Amino acid sequence: MRNVQPFHVMELLARARALEAAGRSIIHMEIGEPDFPTARPIVQAGVKALHAGFTHYTSAAGLPALREAVARFYGERYRCDIAPERIVITTGASGALQLTCGVLIDPGDRVLMADPGYPCNRTFVGLFGGQAIPIPVGADTGYQLNLKLLQDHWRDGCTGAWLATPSNPTGTLIPSLELHAMIDYCRTKGGFLIVDEIYHGLVYEQQAVSAAALADDVFVVNSFSKYFGMTGWRLGWLVAPEGFVREIDKLAQNIFLAPPTPAQYAALAAFEPATIDILESYRETFRQRRDFLLPALRELGFDIPVKPQGAFYLYANSERFDEDSFALAGRLLKDFGVAITPGIDFGKHRAKQHVRFAYTNSLANLQQGVERLRRALR
Amino acid sequence: MRNVQPFHVMELLARARALEAAGRSIIHMEIGEPDFPTARPIVQAGVKALHAGFTHYTSAAGLPALREAVARFYGERYRCDIAPERIVITTGASGALQLTCGVLIDPGDRVLMADPGYPCNRTFVGLFGGQAIPIPVGADTGYQLNLKLLQDHWRDGCTGAWLATPSNPTGTLIPSLELHAMIDYCRTKGGFLIVDEIYHGLVYEQQAVSAAALADDVFVVNSFSKYFGMTGWRLGWLVAPEGFVREIDKLAQNIFLAPPTPAQYAALAAFEPATIDILESYRETFRQRRDFLLPALRELGFDIPVKPQGAFYLYANSERFDEDSFALAGRLLKDFGVAITPGIDFGKHRAKQHVRFAYTNSLANLQQGVERLRRALR
Repeated sequence: MRNVQPFHVMELLARARALEAAGRSIIHMEIGEPDFPTARPIVQAGVKALHAGFTHYTSAAGLPALREAVARFYGERYRCDIAPERIVITTGASGALQLTCGVLIDPGDRVLMADPGYPCNRTFVGLFGGQAIPIPVGADTGYQLNLKLLQDHWRDGCTGAWLATPSNPTGTLIPSLELHAMIDYCRTKGGFLIVDEIYHGLVYEQQAVSAAALADDVFVVNSFSKYFGMTGWRLGWLVAPEGFVREIDKLAQNIFLAPPTPAQYAALAAFEPATIDILESYRETFRQRRDFLLPALRELGFDIPVKPQGAFYLYANSERFDEDSFALAGRLLKDFGVAITPGIDFGKHRAKQHVRFAYTNSLANLQQGVERLRRALR
Repeated sequence: MRNVQPFHVMELLARARALEAAGRSIIHMEIGEPDFPTARPIVQAGVKALHAGFTHYTSAAGLPALREAVARFYGERYRCDIAPERIVITTGASGALQLTCGVLIDPGDRVLMADPGYPCNRTFVGLFGGQAIPIPVGADTGYQLNLKLLQDHWRDGCTGAWLATPSNPTGTLIPSLELHAMIDYCRTKGGFLIVDEIYHGLVYEQQAVSAAALADDVFVVNSFSKYFGMTGWRLGWLVAPEGFVREIDKLAQNIFLAPPTPAQYAALAAFEPATIDILESYRETFRQRRDFLLPALRELGFDIPVKPQGAFYLYANSERFDEDSFALAGRLLKDFGVAITPGIDFGKHRAKQHVRFAYTNSLANLQQGVERLRRALR
């Protein structure tokens, strides 16, 4: 527990809510979930499931029909053939990450991951006695690991690597050639590779390549939360190598019993064309927001050297405004009503020099946020 | 992972489903969830929440209104005053058990628990590097730990004890005086006490006393699954000692993010008088089933020396029919279409001599099951 960090943004969020309760207007650019409601066909499928009494446990690995639907989705979107048996439905991507670590990590194992990165990844590795080895990454590699970084940092005790594409907090994508090279490298070293693709649907201007389409010995984690807009339903999935499915199923039986049933029935509607149309319109809205916010923040003086290809985050160097981004975030909230996330929530590497902006807010609010920032930082 | 056991009943269940798919009639007495649908007011509250768009993340510890509702429930049902801040809403009782172990257990810790018991408890302790120390229990102590057993087995390295009342698989309750004595003993030893009360609502003829009403330094786990009939929604809760809430919240943020939101809104209706009326009628039905099945199984020759006070299980000695209860369960399923759970799913102590019957099936089906058993075992 000593190594488990709280989210510092939660402290800011609590302060933000106290300010709002006192009547202050706060522009939220710290929230890591879509502001859109869950798409109507998904909600309707959920309601239908509740009325039909689909509220008992499912199998630990999820409804067979949903596992098949996810497998079909890989065929349609990524042109790859995944057996439904390799899809494990989980309680959020969190559940998938925990199961993956549960079957892969033994005490003392060292797992390479990028710093900055999603903070909970370290916790999941630590949960099973492993040690996350953060590798500092910067703009030169698009804030991502690459083959050279893996080669430079792979030492005795390393048992695998963990990638996230697009990355939280940077929104950057791993180029597919580099992803391929890292898959090969991990295989050569006899190590595992976990690829977090939970922001995969939210990639702009291009179609991201899933690691699941490149190799069948990689652990690919995805989620219904972000692109599919189902955060609170708590549903994700894992594409597991065939030889691990039985162990994963056994662990899921023991620690989760099963993912939420109404959410699983609702998610059956997530892949329907009418739903995808809605999700694609949301994606386009996110792109428009990025295309507004990125130049606006740069113009204010935030240094954002890489244009992020996906997710809904901008990771900005803020050191010209304050040498301590946590203090900066506190001041922006308290004095100007703008909530952002300090870099320390994502690691240690130059964390005090960075902040994360989330564009999970309307264009009008983002515009107002930028105006407030302009007053704050001039 | 080597120490994580699959549920053997799952193997039987898969066989049962294959038989059913081939047209065979199977009487299910193995299933650990109520056969009743979720009560209508709860379903309606869930539907309302979905229509209202309550599908975003909540706080990691759950909706404040639900934490307050659970706290009020302790006041009304158990006449004890629990601060809502001490209630942590979780993804099933599974989530509560994992969080509890996460903040309590360090590698090498030894935790006392009854054998037979709920198999996943061992997994949760092992997840954090601890070791579950099974204490054989029998009919003489109502298949429960007691003060003397704790005293006899508490050794160096013991850091706590784990109770379940009513117990799965035995349905037996810990008398409140004994519970009180064990709470005192653990406190004297500087150890923790976890009390699993997930079957607490399903107690017949008497009102069970919650450990939360006896002490504020005990970890009490409960669930919306069994009494409240919300299995597939995946919602439970934890009553935590005040000094642990912050750590638990931090861990929940990291590994779960939050419990399912629609389920939380639905559960707000779980404590309403109209809902409780329905749940109490279900409880009465369970009592009737127990009162049919217990004498019927005894008459067939199963040895059930203790009348269980709660849950929906009967734990029976089956050795006069077969020295291996797993083989017996397999034979009863294959040749007579009756599905029950073998003792090995609940531990090692005399596991091969016992089976568990679940009365989560209609009285008519239970009667038919007993008839089939009569033919099988004559």
